[in-house]
Amino acid sequence: MSLSYGRQYLAIPGPSVIPDSVLQAMHRASPNIYEGELHDLTASLIPDLKYVAMTDHNVAIYIGNGHAAWEAALANVVAPGDTVLVLATGRFGIGWGEMAAGVGAQVEIMDFGAQAAIDLARVEEVLAADTAGRIKAVMVVHVDTSTSIKNDIAGLRAVMDHAGHSALLMADFIASLGCDRFEMDAWGVDVMVSACQKGLMTPAGISFVFFNDKAEAAQSATVSRYWDWRPRIKPEVYYQYFAGTAPTHHLYGLRAALDLIKAEGREAVFARHAKIAQAVWAAIDVWGVDGPMALNVADPAQRSHAVTSVAMGSSAAKDLRRWTEEKCGLTLGIGLGRDPEEDYFRIGHMGHLSGHMIMGALGTIDAGLKALNIPHGRGALDAASEVIATA
Amino acid sequence: MSLSYGRQYLAIPGPSVIPDSVLQAMHRASPNIYEGELHDLTASLIPDLKYVAMTDHNVAIYIGNGHAAWEAALANVVAPGDTVLVLATGRFGIGWGEMAAGVGAQVEIMDFGAQAAIDLARVEEVLAADTAGRIKAVMVVHVDTSTSIKNDIAGLRAVMDHAGHSALLMADFIASLGCDRFEMDAWGVDVMVSACQKGLMTPAGISFVFFNDKAEAAQSATVSRYWDWRPRIKPEVYYQYFAGTAPTHHLYGLRAALDLIKAEGREAVFARHAKIAQAVWAAIDVWGVDGPMALNVADPAQRSHAVTSVAMGSSAAKDLRRWTEEKCGLTLGIGLGRDPEEDYFRIGHMGHLSGHMIMGALGTIDAGLKALNIPHGRGALDAASEVIATA
Amino acid sequence: MSLSYGRQYLAIPGPSVIPDSVLQAMHRASPNIYEGELHDLTASLIPDLKYVAMTDHNVAIYIGNGHAAWEAALANVVAPGDTVLVLATGRFGIGWGEMAAGVGAQVEIMDFGAQAAIDLARVEEVLAADTAGRIKAVMVVHVDTSTSIKNDIAGLRAVMDHAGHSALLMADFIASLGCDRFEMDAWGVDVMVSACQKGLMTPAGISFVFFNDKAEAAQSATVSRYWDWRPRIKPEVYYQYFAGTAPTHHLYGLRAALDLIKAEGREAVFARHAKIAQAVWAAIDVWGVDGPMALNVADPAQRSHAVTSVAMGSSAAKDLRRWTEEKCGLTLGIGLGRDPEEDYFRIGHMGHLSGHMIMGALGTIDAGLKALNIPHGRGALDAASEVIATA
Amino acid sequence: MSLSYGRQYLAIPGPSVIPDSVLQAMHRASPNIYEGELHDLTASLIPDLKYVAMTDHNVAIYIGNGHAAWEAALANVVAPGDTVLVLATGRFGIGWGEMAAGVGAQVEIMDFGAQAAIDLARVEEVLAADTAGRIKAVMVVHVDTSTSIKNDIAGLRAVMDHAGHSALLMADFIASLGCDRFEMDAWGVDVMVSACQKGLMTPAGISFVFFNDKAEAAQSATVSRYWDWRPRIKPEVYYQYFAGTAPTHHLYGLRAALDLIKAEGREAVFARHAKIAQAVWAAIDVWGVDGPMALNVADPAQRSHAVTSVAMGSSAAKDLRRWTEEKCGLTLGIGLGRDPEEDYFRIGHMGHLSGHMIMGALGTIDAGLKALNIPHGRGALDAASEVIATA
Repeated sequence: MSLSYGRQYLAIPGPSVIPDSVLQAMHRASPNIYEGELHDLTASLIPDLKYVAMTDHNVAIYIGNGHAAWEAALANVVAPGDTVLVLATGRFGIGWGEMAAGVGAQVEIMDFGAQAAIDLARVEEVLAADTAGRIKAVMVVHVDTSTSIKNDIAGLRAVMDHAGHSALLMADFIASLGCDRFEMDAWGVDVMVSACQKGLMTPAGISFVFFNDKAEAAQSATVSRYWDWRPRIKPEVYYQYFAGTAPTHHLYGLRAALDLIKAEGREAVFARHAKIAQAVWAAIDVWGVDGPMALNVADPAQRSHAVTSVAMGSSAAKDLRRWTEEKCGLTLGIGLGRDPEEDYFRIGHMGHLSGHMIMGALGTIDAGLKALNIPHGRGALDAASEVIATA
Repeated sequence: MSLSYGRQYLAIPGPSVIPDSVLQAMHRASPNIYEGELHDLTASLIPDLKYVAMTDHNVAIYIGNGHAAWEAALANVVAPGDTVLVLATGRFGIGWGEMAAGVGAQVEIMDFGAQAAIDLARVEEVLAADTAGRIKAVMVVHVDTSTSIKNDIAGLRAVMDHAGHSALLMADFIASLGCDRFEMDAWGVDVMVSACQKGLMTPAGISFVFFNDKAEAAQSATVSRYWDWRPRIKPEVYYQYFAGTAPTHHLYGLRAALDLIKAEGREAVFARHAKIAQAVWAAIDVWGVDGPMALNVADPAQRSHAVTSVAMGSSAAKDLRRWTEEKCGLTLGIGLGRDPEEDYFRIGHMGHLSGHMIMGALGTIDAGLKALNIPHGRGALDAASEVIATA
Repeated sequence: MSLSYGRQYLAIPGPSVIPDSVLQAMHRASPNIYEGELHDLTASLIPDLKYVAMTDHNVAIYIGNGHAAWEAALANVVAPGDTVLVLATGRFGIGWGEMAAGVGAQVEIMDFGAQAAIDLARVEEVLAADTAGRIKAVMVVHVDTSTSIKNDIAGLRAVMDHAGHSALLMADFIASLGCDRFEMDAWGVDVMVSACQKGLMTPAGISFVFFNDKAEAAQSATVSRYWDWRPRIKPEVYYQYFAGTAPTHHLYGLRAALDLIKAEGREAVFARHAKIAQAVWAAIDVWGVDGPMALNVADPAQRSHAVTSVAMGSSAAKDLRRWTEEKCGLTLGIGLGRDPEEDYFRIGHMGHLSGHMIMGALGTIDAGLKALNIPHGRGALDAASEVIATA
Repeated sequence: MSLSYGRQYLAIPGPSVIPDSVLQAMHRASPNIYEGELHDLTASLIPDLKYVAMTDHNVAIYIGNGHAAWEAALANVVAPGDTVLVLATGRFGIGWGEMAAGVGAQVEIMDFGAQAAIDLARVEEVLAADTAGRIKAVMVVHVDTSTSIKNDIAGLRAVMDHAGHSALLMADFIASLGCDRFEMDAWGVDVMVSACQKGLMTPAGISFVFFNDKAEAAQSATVSRYWDWRPRIKPEVYYQYFAGTAPTHHLYGLRAALDLIKAEGREAVFARHAKIAQAVWAAIDVWGVDGPMALNVADPAQRSHAVTSVAMGSSAAKDLRRWTEEKCGLTLGIGLGRDPEEDYFRIGHMGHLSGHMIMGALGTIDAGLKALNIPHGRGALDAASEVIATA
């Protein structure tokens, strides 16, 4: 018997649930790409993207996924032979570093493991030791979805400044933009990469590189035509703005998604994600009282508001994922990049996400624990609903 | 602060949640109504509607809502002056009786209140007393959504037979078709009315009159052209089949909905609704242990599997509905037809409904109870998830 | 070889081409039917429907097709035994008369054939002769799609007044509302029926009865609950407004369609249809110079701006329809109700219709004439484009 | 007055008209990207893409537009310092050459102007002279949309072979794949780039690099991670296949588009485009008899079947474009890359395109010529319909 016949719920850490208004906006004929409304619509996206990222600087839109934005950012400021320092707290930090190596950089990695944020003191030591200014850029992932660790980016800027190091601060906000608070200018981020399919609630396919004047000035002469961000901040020369044909339907979709964010309000979006994350943590804490479940990240301040990694201590994590999907229509995220993967699962709670949706996800996990006879504390859902009740 | 920004969930007792495949099927150009694929598609619906209703007899499709089907059924077999016996267990039984009066019938009502099913023994007495065969039809609502009472239709047929009464058995399955078990032929129902927007998961706009040979033979000479069911069982004369232009897009939508039911299987659909209803009842029972909440219908055998009416004993029901909608994006049903309305609410759990959806609805109600300081037993969600776990 | 792979074009006289914005508006979850935005949206439709029909009186919305509106209008003002006078200029006039008989009326038919409008002088004679006021209503179809004849409704009112007859003037504007000019109040129409799937550009499924105070006062006591128009002019009592569940998705669709009409402007809509009709006639006139094609209606003043019936004098009409559909993706209308049907075809040119669409339809017919070696004058498309050029 | 209220028709040389089934397929929730149906669906695209391109070799899918595929192809086989030979017949050939310079190549351009195909004899001379094998790749655009010139790619292979030159043959089929005949393996193309928004009828956003074993063996060590085509031919390692998140919705859309192509059949698709192109040429030839209009390419064998560039000898081209759009809802292509641009316009006739659509486009142009008093031969539409009639 299956109770999965109904609306499916994809609760993985991206792509997230696409709002109806976004899908409706994309269900349309192709517009003229040479003149007319598409040009105005494209121009309208830019201030709203900056509003979400809290920046007055630049944003370039790329047709591509998050990895494309990774490479685009690197291609603009890292030339073959340059050294970059990667601060890793999960699979995606490592991956971005590999991409840097792929464009010819010398990559130095500081790996802080999979359960806690980067140790800023250690980073400061390394930077202070680089008196020659060998390090061109410091690369960090704000929220690594593989571990759900959230790093302190403003704190990282502080230690860079304290060390007196002039490296660019390059940060990946793919999983957190539009979920967790982010203040690009106030936090002193020089280059920020993100993508549309998580907090921005648009089908995967476009991604973003935000950059400030310092980054712009540091542009490498080796950047290729397609990755070059210069034409991508001049929408008035439209055909070059996207280096060719615009991603027409995604632009309409993103417009609808940004309209949702603006209607709710940036601060309200952050507060909603925070509250929902707390409800998730509350449930897991109770489950863990009488069983193997545990939050991957101990310190709440180091936990993402967009995704939560859960350790099960056995392949029960995999069984649970299968049960929730086959029996109840809820798809949870795999333990991507963990060892062994089947001992972990992840709950995505980003973007278009309401109180009833998260209670449905948690309720289904609770049912799965019972169905599979996985030991767990009772009352987890009461604990979660108590958090939701404070909304 | 609101956690309502996300997918909205309409958990009223109809219209129900529309599956994506149904909406996709309706997002299309108008087809030719005079020849071609629309004719084949229409013909394909008929056996599948009969499959859902477990009948080998006839079904007529009307462009209209459930009330249209009510009047259509009456117009075909009740002439002005005929007497009908209405067995009421809620607002909709009364309403169908009013419609019978509107077509000129003499209407006799047996009102069994709002908390229990019809008393078959009392019905048998009345029928046995009608030795003159004055009563042309017995009208009953299987599941009255205003009370969530479910009546025993096979039992009603048995007492009609036992009383030796030849009246037509006319039953309203608007709220239960495709949710609760129904066997039209085995149960001896002569005329059955239903509609598309509940268990059949299609946007409101078409409804159905099923009828057997006895009902066909009893057709009234006074039936109007539009209500006449005769042309509506001959799709081969297509333009007359719908008395004019076909409801093109609804036919495509219904086709997609019936495909879902067939893919899941009739028995699996019934079992899913039963399990979900039990989860709802389990939660309410626990909430009621330490507070005012109570299931409207005491006997589980008399409870609908598609909707549950809940009494709160005060206008807290209205407050709760508002909280779940404004704070969590969950819309519950009003206490339609109850006195006072604001003391009741209803949970629709019909149609396109998965385990995670119902856990989300119950979890939200739980949060609302906590937020509004409405006394309630704790552990209600554990109780519900225990039921879901047995899926 | 086929050139039909591309956007299909349904150029039958209804249903017409559905605008993308209408389909998008209908691709959505069901709304709450008991409160909230649906109520406001419904109320917003009423003044806009009246704007299109140029009336300050009443409009009732029915879930149903045009035939439902026919019966609804009759049920409200014609009691069994009443006499009605039907003025027929095609199949639909006859059909409405049959429906009147179906509700018990005595039906008198004046049939003016299939090629010219009603003869007002003859009508005046009949009315003048009815000194007893036996005739309760005069029923007429403004544009009968089977013949594409357009009748002079203001002229009919004049002869009714001149004859001093108090019968209700009931008119069917199903095929012409939102295409041809119509001024309900100025023309003195008492009851007007229409539907959504032609000039109103919405998928078939809702229809309309407009009525003035005189018609309201004439309401029959025998009207049934479902057809009763009284609750249908009081949207503030919402659940009774549609006699049960609202046609939710159609209301959203109609809202989008009316927005299009208002944005273009009523007069501009009429002017566009007039211009396009003239282009169609111009082409047919040229084709007919050297072949069998002929406009069914000789007098331009008596021709619909929404549909054109074309006589081919042989079953070549049927061959041509098949060719345009199979080879070019253009579906033309059958010779509905004509004898023999295969000698006629019809071009629908109503609703969401641009200059390039009509040139595409005419160009395809021209290709079909050539492909099938049907004699025809050359230069027909030049003649049509000359008309379009004057836009 | 405007006749533009109706379905808009975008007849520019890409993006082309998107079929309803493609848009419907894209109107859906995001799928799981880590396992399940999306993986099977992705794998299913590969043989069908090869079917369209007539190759047994490899195809890599990139999230990006045609320019992304340009750079991807170059990044894989051209290292900084390598020499490439660009054969230009319009703006896009030049543009691809600029992109090659952007990745560090030495670019040699042979410009054959804007009105005729490349001169193979001259190319052979250049290749024969390159006895040192300095030229790493010969780059050519099959159909340059700016001029609508079609080049002879099989002929180019022949002269390369005849010259005994081992350079890679790299060809851009962005505008012609799925329109004009193309046989990648038989014609000896080593690297072919294309995109989804023209003959493949999918909203802009994904593009393709096809490559054979010779190209694979020639891969440059300098290729970056994102452009590297090696992981992109191994869908079984799914997360690396797209270098991160898959372009989920585009994959569903492309699946629907390829289903259309397969249902029609590759040869039928080519034949349809050829016939429609001939109709376009026939009309322009007649218009040109008495006026300034002229086909840009004199030799029919050198004309694209997907786009036609038209010279007007004055800015009347711009006026005509504006008239067709504002008055009739038909958007024609600008004279991209020509001097002066406003003297030229282009008709896109690619992809989802039926006989009635092209007759509509031509009919509208004819009306525009008349409206603007631009001299033109009469009977152009008769000439076009004569071609269509031979379908």
